[in-house]
Amino acid sequence: MDSATQVFCDRGYAASSMRDLSRATGTSLAGLYYYFESKERLLYEIQKHTFETILQRAQERLKGVAEPEERIRIFIRNHLEYFLANQKGMKVLSHEAGVLGPELGQGIHSIKRQYYQLCRELLDALKVSHWLKFSSRLAVLSLFGMMNWIYTWHNAKADADAEELATFMGDLFLHGLLSAGGNSLDVSPVRRYARPETSKLSEHPTRY
Amino acid sequence: MDSATQVFCDRGYAASSMRDLSRATGTSLAGLYYYFESKERLLYEIQKHTFETILQRAQERLKGVAEPEERIRIFIRNHLEYFLANQKGMKVLSHEAGVLGPELGQGIHSIKRQYYQLCRELLDALKVSHWLKFSSRLAVLSLFGMMNWIYTWHNAKADADAEELATFMGDLFLHGLLSAGGNSLDVSPVRRYARPETSKLSEHPTRY
Repeated sequence: MDSATQVFCDRGYAASSMRDLSRATGTSLAGLYYYFESKERLLYEIQKHTFETILQRAQERLKGVAEPEERIRIFIRNHLEYFLANQKGMKVLSHEAGVLGPELGQGIHSIKRQYYQLCRELLDALKVSHWLKFSSRLAVLSLFGMMNWIYTWHNAKADADAEELATFMGDLFLHGLLSAGGNSLDVSPVRRYARPETSKLSEHPTRY
Repeated sequence: MDSATQVFCDRGYAASSMRDLSRATGTSLAGLYYYFESKERLLYEIQKHTFETILQRAQERLKGVAEPEERIRIFIRNHLEYFLANQKGMKVLSHEAGVLGPELGQGIHSIKRQYYQLCRELLDALKVSHWLKFSSRLAVLSLFGMMNWIYTWHNAKADADAEELATFMGDLFLHGLLSAGGNSLDVSPVRRYARPETSKLSEHPTRY
């Protein structure tokens, strides 16, 4: 699976053939078909393994931690650590997200959904504990964007490591939510029609 | 170019052939080769056009605006508006970023670099005006991640529009920087002197 990840990452999924995968993994073509039946299945197994691992680790690390901010920081640190330690796998995951057909895609979707849901619950808890109002969906997806985008730019030799990145992004994200979430981040469906003070704040942002 | 963008977006660049592109654009294969010489060239033209347009619009909108926070908000709004209005093109841009060979890739890199640099200057101005300390590189790339990731999840029928997204992300980002940037976002002051970001970038010309 590591070798296959490497191939998908270097050549892209669409351009990789079972023959390439056979060569890279040192498995006969027949053997490869026997175990994985198709390259789609292989991609599925890689994605499944990655999501299950990152989800499981997050859940373990969150055990016994009650403070909402700290829980979000743990989630971010776990994601970035795993991401950077498995950069090729994460690139394949991010890049080939929509490639699987409906059946296998459904399997991945449900694990992904659990992971998304975990992050959402952490944010909902923050909202309750700090009396904040913001769209959890937008916040989760903004956070994922910030974190996942690193596959396009992170250079292990020159850039900050996982811990520093987690501190930076955790600070940016949490301070952003805590400081803005009391008012302006509220883009709830009701407000989306009326759109009152949000625009005022965007024209004259609060100074600190 | 619109039809070609559609094909690259739906099938992926690697899986698209000049024959597919010929069919989708209603141009003969010979005609397509005459104007674009290769599908790589076509991808290059799409990327070039997209980056030039978004950069030019940002520069125009920034004219005459002096306030650093407002300038960052304009940049964010411009990016998201263009992104959502040209979602297919932006997907191709985000997704096929590393596909071009060295020569054409260099051309895109230099426009991309200008766009990155513009955003970086906006952040540097914010740092000066608010006495903040944070890594401009990390901030720019976190912002791009937040914004560009929407190509993976945004549903025009159900999700917030560009203006609302810009308000949300602008608030999150600016409040985050303003509130955290006075202290905790300063991840590695030592590193910043030891390894200036400019040289980091010049060592890796294909990244921004």
